[in-house]
Amino acid sequence: MRQAKRIVVKLGSAVVTRGDECGLALGRLASIVEQVAMLQNQGREMVIVTSGAVAFGKQRLRHEILLSQSVRQALHSGHNQLKDMSLSVLEARACAAAGQSGLMALYEAMFTQYSTCTAQVLVTNLDFHDDEKRQNLHSTLQELLRMNIVPIINTNDAVVPPPEPDSDLQGVNVGTDSMGATLEVVRVAAGVLKGLAESLVCTVISIKDNDSLAARLAVEMKADLLIALSDVEGLYNSPPGTDDAKLIDIFYPGDQQSITYGTKSRVGIGGMEAKVKAALWALHGGTSVVIANGTNPKVTGHVITDIVEGKKVGTFFSETKPAGPSVEEQTEKARNCGRSLASLQPDQRSEIIRHLAELLTERKEMILTANKMDMDVAYSTGRLAPAMLKRLSLSPAKLHSLAVGLHQIAETAQGTVGRVLRRTRVAHNLELEQITIPIGVLLVIFEARPDCLPQVSALAIATGNALLLKGGKEAANTNRVLHQLTQEALSIHGVREAVQMVSTREEVEDLCRLDKMIDLIIPRGSSQLVRDIQRAAKGIPVLGHSEGICHVYIDADASVDKAIKIGRDSKCDYPAACNAMETLLIHRDILRAPLFDQMVDMLRTERVKIHAGPRFASYLTFSPSEAKSLRTEYGDLECCVEVVDSMEEAVEHIHKYGSSHTDVIITENVIEIFLPEETAEQFLQKLDSACVFWNASSRFADGYRFGLGAEVGISTARIHARGPVGLEGLLTTKWILRGEGHTVADFSEHGTRKYLHESLAVGQRDNN
Amino acid sequence: MRQAKRIVVKLGSAVVTRGDECGLALGRLASIVEQVAMLQNQGREMVIVTSGAVAFGKQRLRHEILLSQSVRQALHSGHNQLKDMSLSVLEARACAAAGQSGLMALYEAMFTQYSTCTAQVLVTNLDFHDDEKRQNLHSTLQELLRMNIVPIINTNDAVVPPPEPDSDLQGVNVGTDSMGATLEVVRVAAGVLKGLAESLVCTVISIKDNDSLAARLAVEMKADLLIALSDVEGLYNSPPGTDDAKLIDIFYPGDQQSITYGTKSRVGIGGMEAKVKAALWALHGGTSVVIANGTNPKVTGHVITDIVEGKKVGTFFSETKPAGPSVEEQTEKARNCGRSLASLQPDQRSEIIRHLAELLTERKEMILTANKMDMDVAYSTGRLAPAMLKRLSLSPAKLHSLAVGLHQIAETAQGTVGRVLRRTRVAHNLELEQITIPIGVLLVIFEARPDCLPQVSALAIATGNALLLKGGKEAANTNRVLHQLTQEALSIHGVREAVQMVSTREEVEDLCRLDKMIDLIIPRGSSQLVRDIQRAAKGIPVLGHSEGICHVYIDADASVDKAIKIGRDSKCDYPAACNAMETLLIHRDILRAPLFDQMVDMLRTERVKIHAGPRFASYLTFSPSEAKSLRTEYGDLECCVEVVDSMEEAVEHIHKYGSSHTDVIITENVIEIFLPEETAEQFLQKLDSACVFWNASSRFADGYRFGLGAEVGISTARIHARGPVGLEGLLTTKWILRGEGHTVADFSEHGTRKYLHESLAVGQRDNN
Repeated sequence: MRQAKRIVVKLGSAVVTRGDECGLALGRLASIVEQVAMLQNQGREMVIVTSGAVAFGKQRLRHEILLSQSVRQALHSGHNQLKDMSLSVLEARACAAAGQSGLMALYEAMFTQYSTCTAQVLVTNLDFHDDEKRQNLHSTLQELLRMNIVPIINTNDAVVPPPEPDSDLQGVNVGTDSMGATLEVVRVAAGVLKGLAESLVCTVISIKDNDSLAARLAVEMKADLLIALSDVEGLYNSPPGTDDAKLIDIFYPGDQQSITYGTKSRVGIGGMEAKVKAALWALHGGTSVVIANGTNPKVTGHVITDIVEGKKVGTFFSETKPAGPSVEEQTEKARNCGRSLASLQPDQRSEIIRHLAELLTERKEMILTANKMDMDVAYSTGRLAPAMLKRLSLSPAKLHSLAVGLHQIAETAQGTVGRVLRRTRVAHNLELEQITIPIGVLLVIFEARPDCLPQVSALAIATGNALLLKGGKEAANTNRVLHQLTQEALSIHGVREAVQMVSTREEVEDLCRLDKMIDLIIPRGSSQLVRDIQRAAKGIPVLGHSEGICHVYIDADASVDKAIKIGRDSKCDYPAACNAMETLLIHRDILRAPLFDQMVDMLRTERVKIHAGPRFASYLTFSPSEAKSLRTEYGDLECCVEVVDSMEEAVEHIHKYGSSHTDVIITENVIEIFLPEETAEQFLQKLDSACVFWNASSRFADGYRFGLGAEVGISTARIHARGPVGLEGLLTTKWILRGEGHTVADFSEHGTRKYLHESLAVGQRDNN
Repeated sequence: MRQAKRIVVKLGSAVVTRGDECGLALGRLASIVEQVAMLQNQGREMVIVTSGAVAFGKQRLRHEILLSQSVRQALHSGHNQLKDMSLSVLEARACAAAGQSGLMALYEAMFTQYSTCTAQVLVTNLDFHDDEKRQNLHSTLQELLRMNIVPIINTNDAVVPPPEPDSDLQGVNVGTDSMGATLEVVRVAAGVLKGLAESLVCTVISIKDNDSLAARLAVEMKADLLIALSDVEGLYNSPPGTDDAKLIDIFYPGDQQSITYGTKSRVGIGGMEAKVKAALWALHGGTSVVIANGTNPKVTGHVITDIVEGKKVGTFFSETKPAGPSVEEQTEKARNCGRSLASLQPDQRSEIIRHLAELLTERKEMILTANKMDMDVAYSTGRLAPAMLKRLSLSPAKLHSLAVGLHQIAETAQGTVGRVLRRTRVAHNLELEQITIPIGVLLVIFEARPDCLPQVSALAIATGNALLLKGGKEAANTNRVLHQLTQEALSIHGVREAVQMVSTREEVEDLCRLDKMIDLIIPRGSSQLVRDIQRAAKGIPVLGHSEGICHVYIDADASVDKAIKIGRDSKCDYPAACNAMETLLIHRDILRAPLFDQMVDMLRTERVKIHAGPRFASYLTFSPSEAKSLRTEYGDLECCVEVVDSMEEAVEHIHKYGSSHTDVIITENVIEIFLPEETAEQFLQKLDSACVFWNASSRFADGYRFGLGAEVGISTARIHARGPVGLEGLLTTKWILRGEGHTVADFSEHGTRKYLHESLAVGQRDNN
């Protein structure tokens, strides 16, 4: 839709007016004008088909009538009497006449703010009847568009005959906007109109409402896109509000989709059925259509631009069905197949993982060929930084170590799912068990690194979870092959569909809309990616961390050797890692000790750029540049140095500026290990980061180094998993209770039974 | 602020215009007009002080100039050339003149949509100089307000002298809105103005900008409230963007708060300092002031009404400081004190809980007296339903069982915090430990039941968590006393402030804003409360469940006795409970069996209203009313009955319509228990609800009945705790690594060390 040049925007009464009241919904109108003007200024040709003249006129006439009465009297009452006036006194055609000029003036004033010219075009059904008039209309509109003017089209309600009773008008009285209602039902064979000869599928359309007027105009003007805004979300597969009602994102007329039309829009004419009919008619005429809600305050400000940008809004009517299934269908498939995966035996899941590991070696050539295609594209576009290119590239060695990793995961997979965590004899013959089960459907979003795909798939398979994968566009070819191999491995136990790859077209935001279908999101990539996903993922938990502001605190009693060694390793081993040191805290006493000079020398030798904390700077005659913030994650050969008075102050500093990732103390102030009085123990106990280390490099904060077998990620959250997360992070639990007709009433005061609550050994199974 | 009758709304240039461009921000303007009109129609007296004339005029003049050039040529290019015109060609005073009428016409058109009259009032500094003019202005405005007209006030820029260089005008050129800039700096002693004699504290104010004009007018008109909207959020304690910058919610001039002013607003005149000066001036003159951001698209639609409703928006300038600390201060205090609580010994925490239990008995009279006050209020207002009254009321018996429960929690508290979950020897002398720690700061929101308070406090104390409590207004007196007793108990170990009670004035939404300070929210109350909190709590995890749609499935091989007994207990024992049965699923074969008739008889006897599922209805000649949805939580003596063909279909039904809370199978189809082929085992394994029961009532899903000691809540989430949650649900973990100078470089390919990853017994401590 980004290519759409000529776009017709149809504004239903519900959008333009304030529902039951008769005034205009100015806020909505203004933000619609803003979007239309923006698109026009981008070089598109925008056409507006609008309602609202009657509403505007009614408001105005009521005002005038009231003013012509005793003005003072009315105004002095301090209360607004206008609302109390009966609607019936105002006739619709008069209202339309009175409102038309005001409505247009308002549009003009609004568009003027965006340097956009508008023109008013009033049409009646006769303009479509008469071939010459129709041609005149056509060329007028063409000329306006050529002149970069936005035509604003409305029916000339003032001159058309009064409304006739019609089944389509049920529930609509003269009080509501009569736009189009006053037009008689006209049926015109499509063949009469030029440019419509090919659209014989749907030959008849009546101009009874704005929907059909807009559809007709859009086809007549060969518009690329028709956006029909009203107060309905779009097309549902069942009446909205029923148990299974689901909004249809894309509707293909060829599909035998079953649709049930909901009730009519509250304001204005044109129920859902009429809207769909008009949409199909336009579609057959060559114009794509989107039906969407223009009245939701949360999206009104960007509904039109979102549609033009191709975001999922409302229902899109398209002639061509894309090759693959929709992401909802994929998620559904993954969940169902995931349940089969979960009910396999652990060694069957391990077998799948081992098979995948073997495929990585067997099909090496195929993978590397696909990877070369991605690398070639990356080189030729020159858009990827060298570090990214390195991540994107696969080699036989990389594939080998990947396979080794997978074999390890296969090993660890044993005894993850279905493990009994707790057993309790609640009462005689009433036994409770808590067991581990998969979380459900995981969504893993990863960037450049294609080796992420088999790794993450293996983690999901090991824990019986269904998986949706969304990889970066730059690795599309490699990912496709790796995903094929994963599905091939899964198919040995008939669970091929448990791992799905989502098209790169899908926006992260759209995926996050599936909050009822996805149980956990795991981002694998830059901290920016994580932050973006945390922001977008409303309602779906995200496993991970966006920041790693790790501290190393050198205590007054630190060993020089250990301090230098750990300082170097923490900062320089891999400066971009999340567990690299960002701030070096030093005890004040160190400043005068040889350790300080040695530390600075080491950092200089390693070319680490030092930023001074305010306190540190105040101690120096010539200070390095001051740190802009004590909360910076440099992710490079840079770090902040700050001075503290004591271990307690170091803890306070870290609580205030840290990110609860990993923090280290270096001290020898220990007579006996684990004694709570010692400086080291105090630090380890008081600090509540996910990882707290004594005399060890911050770089140890890692699932593999911790011996967890596999790392799902590192979490700094305070619920669920925390720190480096192994396979346990992908599991949840359920409680199984086995009785023989037990009721809680049996246990009431006057009941016959008593709770035992005996803890049973986890291995023990007791049938009595 | 709900009482404020006369309100001045000041719209800064940044609000009215589109930033750097010169057009008006129509969307914002429209939604502001909507809010002002709504408040006016509520009977308030609204006054607008607006910028925007220059911006409007500039847009218009550029348009005119361009049009007067070769119109066709310009329009035919298809590209908008207006943007490229230099700003400097347009003179500000001319722009003001050209824009004034358009701006007013736009305001008028907009207000007309809400049946609201407006009047234009242009002022110059002379109007304030001259006592007679000032009086005229005053009485004009009075008369307009009396006539229910909204005065729209602006400076008469067209007639004032050109701007003089002034330090306050730095960065402002003629291009931006010169509103007020063209006024010379005027200093008027406040004493000169009538009604200001008492405000001698701040005697001098210059009308250099809209902020001071609005402040002056507000005081002159004795307005109750001045809302100053611009593009700044409000007043910060440090320059926005720095590490410690925090928005000040309420500013008391008496306070020695340190403020640092940020940079000036991007558009228009009047930096933060000028805004604050004007605000303080108005405050001393008797008008309350709120400085807030009117340009944030997320709140623009309701920023004014929110302020009037007293919600926390921007910075509120108030003369009187409320008695208690702010909720942020409370949270901070709770967190700090919570850290001390966490570092106590487990038996010290148990001691606190036991002491609280004793206080409940010792101070019985005091508690019951306070409770009687609440009950009296409830009776006299008659607003509480009988069920709610029952929950609100305390009795000696209730207090006794509460105390018993607390003693149990004190017992369970041992060995919760600091428990070692896992120990690994990573390498020689490098030992890893995973231990349990408190989550941090909990926020518990509860309704009517005051007995919730000591219970929840005990749970938090037992797990070393800090606690914020927000109780219902109806139990205010009881809660106050119970909270006092809790703090008294806490003070025996010097951690009095670890449990804080939040004022009932605080909105749940405002509390949810504290996402960086609160780690977990636990709602205790109706499912509506839970849903509301889940919606509001963006970014903070919520422990709990909003729905309990529990199923009992009667298999073809069910025992009649067990089915009837469990069916009755599940539905009738306590129909409002979340673990009560809502849907009874019956195997098709049962329909023809005596069990069916007995089941229906039982439900009739117990006066349970039956709703028929579609399948069930189709089997009956005369069916009860059809269920509106298969996803209904009746919470009363009502349930849905539906038919399924098999156990597998029952599982499918529950996955589709259930809420993953608790689901039950009743069957005798078991030769040997735990055999995976059996119907019961299949059901228990396949269904992934938090609790799955065989031949036991759904009502057993409860922390106490499960033997967890205490129940924090029941969770249906798929991460963190699931099902009935005991104290473990309030704990998280951290990893402690103890080394002796280990670096990861030592373990690299060419390094000297090797990972061991030996699992150590949890009890074992090894110093080598």
